[in-house]
Amino acid sequence: MSHYRTRLVSPGPVDVPPQVLEASAKPMIHHRSAEFKQIFLATREKLAKLAWVPGEDVLILAASGTAAFEAGLISSVPKGAKVIGINAGKFGERWVKVAKSYGYEVVEMKLSWGEVADPAEVAKLIAQHPDAKALMTTHSETSTGALHDVAEIAKAARKQNPDLLILVDCVTSLGVSEVKPKDWDIDGMFSGSQKGLMCPPGLAFAWLSERAWASAADNKGTLNSSFYLDLVKERKAQQKGETAYTAAVSLVRALDAALDLILAEGIVALWRRKKQMNDAILAAGTALDCEIFAKRPSPAVAALKVPSHISAPAVVKAFAKRGMEIAGGQDESKPYLIRPSVMGYFDRYDVLAVVAALEEVLAELGQQVTQGLALGKAFNFLQT
Amino acid sequence: MSHYRTRLVSPGPVDVPPQVLEASAKPMIHHRSAEFKQIFLATREKLAKLAWVPGEDVLILAASGTAAFEAGLISSVPKGAKVIGINAGKFGERWVKVAKSYGYEVVEMKLSWGEVADPAEVAKLIAQHPDAKALMTTHSETSTGALHDVAEIAKAARKQNPDLLILVDCVTSLGVSEVKPKDWDIDGMFSGSQKGLMCPPGLAFAWLSERAWASAADNKGTLNSSFYLDLVKERKAQQKGETAYTAAVSLVRALDAALDLILAEGIVALWRRKKQMNDAILAAGTALDCEIFAKRPSPAVAALKVPSHISAPAVVKAFAKRGMEIAGGQDESKPYLIRPSVMGYFDRYDVLAVVAALEEVLAELGQQVTQGLALGKAFNFLQT
Repeated sequence: MSHYRTRLVSPGPVDVPPQVLEASAKPMIHHRSAEFKQIFLATREKLAKLAWVPGEDVLILAASGTAAFEAGLISSVPKGAKVIGINAGKFGERWVKVAKSYGYEVVEMKLSWGEVADPAEVAKLIAQHPDAKALMTTHSETSTGALHDVAEIAKAARKQNPDLLILVDCVTSLGVSEVKPKDWDIDGMFSGSQKGLMCPPGLAFAWLSERAWASAADNKGTLNSSFYLDLVKERKAQQKGETAYTAAVSLVRALDAALDLILAEGIVALWRRKKQMNDAILAAGTALDCEIFAKRPSPAVAALKVPSHISAPAVVKAFAKRGMEIAGGQDESKPYLIRPSVMGYFDRYDVLAVVAALEEVLAELGQQVTQGLALGKAFNFLQT
Repeated sequence: MSHYRTRLVSPGPVDVPPQVLEASAKPMIHHRSAEFKQIFLATREKLAKLAWVPGEDVLILAASGTAAFEAGLISSVPKGAKVIGINAGKFGERWVKVAKSYGYEVVEMKLSWGEVADPAEVAKLIAQHPDAKALMTTHSETSTGALHDVAEIAKAARKQNPDLLILVDCVTSLGVSEVKPKDWDIDGMFSGSQKGLMCPPGLAFAWLSERAWASAADNKGTLNSSFYLDLVKERKAQQKGETAYTAAVSLVRALDAALDLILAEGIVALWRRKKQMNDAILAAGTALDCEIFAKRPSPAVAALKVPSHISAPAVVKAFAKRGMEIAGGQDESKPYLIRPSVMGYFDRYDVLAVVAALEEVLAELGQQVTQGLALGKAFNFLQT
């Protein structure tokens, strides 16, 4: 046995607070019981608050975040329609694939990993495709640690096409970074339980705008079919405190407990704290000659390019020896990227653990390191 | 607070053993970690044993049982094909609806609630539709407590059409009643975690035959699209101990613990015990002038028609006062049906609790009851 405490510092799944684990392990109750209905309605209410759409429907699905995005797309955008997809990483790429698999006509805006979409360029593309029905984008691109400026992208896109459905993957931004679907005038917000919500994986969330619900109703006969991923049916059930199919009862209880913790801290305070912690890791990383990978960093993932003579997989392995699971890069970024994350059950002192380990590990792998310099920098950062 | 111990005696969700709840509440681990991969592969191996297909792929999905059936259908049966659906209750009806929603040409064999399909009649229907690609049926029809004789139905069907894909909803039969997909020569077996597997809801299971996998490959270009419910992609990932999308880690751990309990008891012994317990409730019910509703009772659900002067919803309510949640009837059967279930964490002595409560409740509602008669009958039954 290692003498280290185990820390899951990856961009999802994340460490789950003991109170949340405990809630998930409560004796089973029936998903159609009055007791569960009450829990479900209360959880939905809290979730809508966190999603900055109080009183509206944020649907809770027994599925992964991918399914929520897929459901949002096929429940609102007619079969074969033209859709624009911003692809600046693994998840942007995934939504393009999902749309193609259904036979949508996809116009892809392909960017290098680490880049974010320029709102003006997005507007230009929309102007070139006035017949596009939807724009798909990630908010926090987990594979690169970049945060697209969805507020500005949506503003520019809306100006070009007032009817455009703007569908946004908020899987690693909800509960981590500012997410304001209505202020931004977007049409779909999708997320999952195992990221900012600090729950076990297995639940997905979907919010649609009135514009998207209207599109679902207007295009009823020309939507792609799905029985399980039909958000219109799901909405009807959930407004009554039910689910179309059996709810993942224990995970909903976990979510309820997690939302209590999150709302007690305060949503705006949480956003601020997550950003501060992530910035501290990035600052310490640069002090250790790592490079901040994303042009516009997301607070969900401290994506750092390690010095060129160091192997990122070796860094990940050395972290694991210290009880800390950070993620490495995906696909092309595997050799050089590390992705620790401050999401989930993670506090200011955990930042120091991650930075101290990074110092030690880089030194171990042959990097010149002034002991304590990066750690001190991070510590200073946490005082602001 | 009630002084009763709480018993969830419904046909799913069911009571979950404390060891299983405990497993689900373990600290989170990453779904791509070596530790989870090992758990996942071991769980898959145990699940395949329980499903009587050792060494084969029983896919584990983060979804409900409905999604597993839907995935099996659209992953193996080409778009627009003719399919035959046996509908003798709420779930048989659901598969007909799923198929219709995708535009399959559905030939429906509609039976009264409580009936089971006659293999000879099924064969006749298949002879009339030699172009049908698939037959869909439930095994244990949860809404009526009937168990279709899938072994005989499949034998008769296969004789008529050797290429037919026979897709079977085993949601409340897996882990409760004999399920032998290969001996029966069926092509799809689908189930969920919150029934015979005595886990929290949120996982679904899917097994396909070689015939069905071949059909999936041969019809690649003409299948209905789904990204999340693509079993071919899922199989490729799961054979490596991974999942296509984030696995529901805590529920998989619960499943692993539950399978340990189930396999320790022995699968055949479990089938025998579940049937004995269910039969005991049915026998006690008839002694109380209730009627066994299903022509061929499933061991998963003791569906009893209460005497005509008694209201079934009142019985359900009176059980609830005693800490026991049994299910009532669905749709048309609501006024007269009760459906206690022996699935899940439930032993011989719990049978006595259910029967004693039934005696008390019926007496309370005005039924003439010889005190202890039904209870004694159930007790005798449990000695055999």
